[in-house]
Amino acid sequence: MTPPRVSSAEGGLIALQSLETRGGVKKAAIGVDIGGTSVKLGLVNPRGQVALRDSFLTGHTPGRAGLLNLLVSHIRRFGKEAARSGFKVLGVGIGAPGPIDVRKGLVHFFPNIPGWRNTPLKKILQSRTHLPVWVDNDAGVMALAEYFFGAGRGSRNVIALTLGTGIGGGLVIDGKLFSGPAFSAAEVGHIIINEKGRLCACGNRGCVEAYVGGRSFIREVKARLKKGAKSVLSSWLRTRNTALTPLLVAQAARRGDPFSKKIWRETGEHLGTALAGLCNVLNPEKIILGGGMAGNGRLIFGPVIATIRKKAFPIAARSVKVVPAKLGVDAGLVGAAALVFSNKGTREAR
Amino acid sequence: MTPPRVSSAEGGLIALQSLETRGGVKKAAIGVDIGGTSVKLGLVNPRGQVALRDSFLTGHTPGRAGLLNLLVSHIRRFGKEAARSGFKVLGVGIGAPGPIDVRKGLVHFFPNIPGWRNTPLKKILQSRTHLPVWVDNDAGVMALAEYFFGAGRGSRNVIALTLGTGIGGGLVIDGKLFSGPAFSAAEVGHIIINEKGRLCACGNRGCVEAYVGGRSFIREVKARLKKGAKSVLSSWLRTRNTALTPLLVAQAARRGDPFSKKIWRETGEHLGTALAGLCNVLNPEKIILGGGMAGNGRLIFGPVIATIRKKAFPIAARSVKVVPAKLGVDAGLVGAAALVFSNKGTREAR
Repeated sequence: MTPPRVSSAEGGLIALQSLETRGGVKKAAIGVDIGGTSVKLGLVNPRGQVALRDSFLTGHTPGRAGLLNLLVSHIRRFGKEAARSGFKVLGVGIGAPGPIDVRKGLVHFFPNIPGWRNTPLKKILQSRTHLPVWVDNDAGVMALAEYFFGAGRGSRNVIALTLGTGIGGGLVIDGKLFSGPAFSAAEVGHIIINEKGRLCACGNRGCVEAYVGGRSFIREVKARLKKGAKSVLSSWLRTRNTALTPLLVAQAARRGDPFSKKIWRETGEHLGTALAGLCNVLNPEKIILGGGMAGNGRLIFGPVIATIRKKAFPIAARSVKVVPAKLGVDAGLVGAAALVFSNKGTREAR
Repeated sequence: MTPPRVSSAEGGLIALQSLETRGGVKKAAIGVDIGGTSVKLGLVNPRGQVALRDSFLTGHTPGRAGLLNLLVSHIRRFGKEAARSGFKVLGVGIGAPGPIDVRKGLVHFFPNIPGWRNTPLKKILQSRTHLPVWVDNDAGVMALAEYFFGAGRGSRNVIALTLGTGIGGGLVIDGKLFSGPAFSAAEVGHIIINEKGRLCACGNRGCVEAYVGGRSFIREVKARLKKGAKSVLSSWLRTRNTALTPLLVAQAARRGDPFSKKIWRETGEHLGTALAGLCNVLNPEKIILGGGMAGNGRLIFGPVIATIRKKAFPIAARSVKVVPAKLGVDAGLVGAAALVFSNKGTREAR
């Protein structure tokens, strides 16, 4: 079920709907999606519906203390607003970028937000909001959202990938978000598919991200055009005032440009190769693809699915469905709230 | 802890030691290791010690009915023998080759034993022995043995590989043997490390098994020697009455033969590449390597470990230990018995 989409006015609280009542009390969790640009908050019910929402710019007040203060004041305001509307707030779930000690709720660092090295975010927020707090990686939280409320419903073993500049990944194994003992699992982008292949941003050669990540994709298109490959893209780039993006290459492919069709097919095949290996190891029921690179429909899903069918073992290939993500921009905050529900046992693994 | 090794006389029961008493009753499970050549049975206590053992040749009586009758009569005899010695038998665990529906205890087929297609082994044995029965894949059972009683003790996330002609794999995730929803997980040998690489027996190109499996290893050595590579192996093969085996190549490497050292290093690097990707996805605490190809110590462990250190993310690489399997030939039957203990809750996941 896709939750209702509402454009949130900065700083404004929007009551969307009254939530269902469970056991006489309307239960909800506060989901927080910390991103490099903005922080989104939502009051989310156990069905994944967003009742209140808010957001602010991550850099609105500089420094860690400033961001922490904004987080605390917004969470408090949500708490009051929720109580006034008759909700019981079970806790706060936070999805954040970068490596996180999930057990301690400790942020090792934020890749694009300075000043957060070794921050005990869970502890700080619990003591200042008097609510239980859970923190997890943003890619994991997105996977949890899709598992509970989106494309992963009804499956207990799910791999969810966000295909953007890089590849973010989350694993649900036997109904639980799997972070690994050192909380560094699910880095699906760094499965190596060619030992002597393209250089990856991580320093290795041949990681699947070096083929499927948006940045690598564009670098490859540019390199091939420069080498003289024929494509409608060349004339588009000369005559239109436009940047070379995966979307532009997708438009060219849809218009029948053989060069663009080929590079999308190859990209899907590279991703399919990594996923075929992963199907042989984890035998997932669903692979969910979201993010910008996955937004191009059959161009990417077609070759991904064909390659899995071809390269994974028949039992594993037959038992997996490759589907697009459903929750879009809300996945972060809905998944963050799902951290609360899954830890509180309000929504059991099905 | 390595269980005591005793050469088992065909058909003879050997009482090794009295087992510890738990809650006033000595508990034990019957472990059965079905292989293409022989079937091994053991009465195993919850500490992984083998009290009685027996074995017979798989082809001793032809056909499925014959093998089933032998299984039943041996299990019954073990049951009586156990009762006479004051044991309570909790159940029967069976490790068997090929694809198995673990939930139903259904054998889809045995790769090297004809006539077993779609056999409800669990159901048949339960009705004929009046004991609870669990069936799982032999590679998974080996992983469970190492996890409970061998090199995996104290870790909750373990990848165990048997490196033989092919690569068998078992995953313990969060303290549980993970088979996947379609029971086809843990096929680690079919992670693809080179999209245009060597042809694998499964039909794909570039599976890690096509580099590390014993058969592929020997094929590669032969091809290189035929192409004129210089190695002491050529003269050994001419002058000694010996076959070209991985062990022979290991002997040559230990004597300093550059060709043999190089091919072992490359083999370890290929395996390390697949495992580095797997560390990035599953973040295991231990990787346990057993089987013939792993028996060559530093020749294989050295480059495997170096490659994981180089190619896996630092957190994942630091948190994993790559260690040799401990249980040797007993892993199959001890692990089969562990199926009973883990399902009966006698040994909880630690």
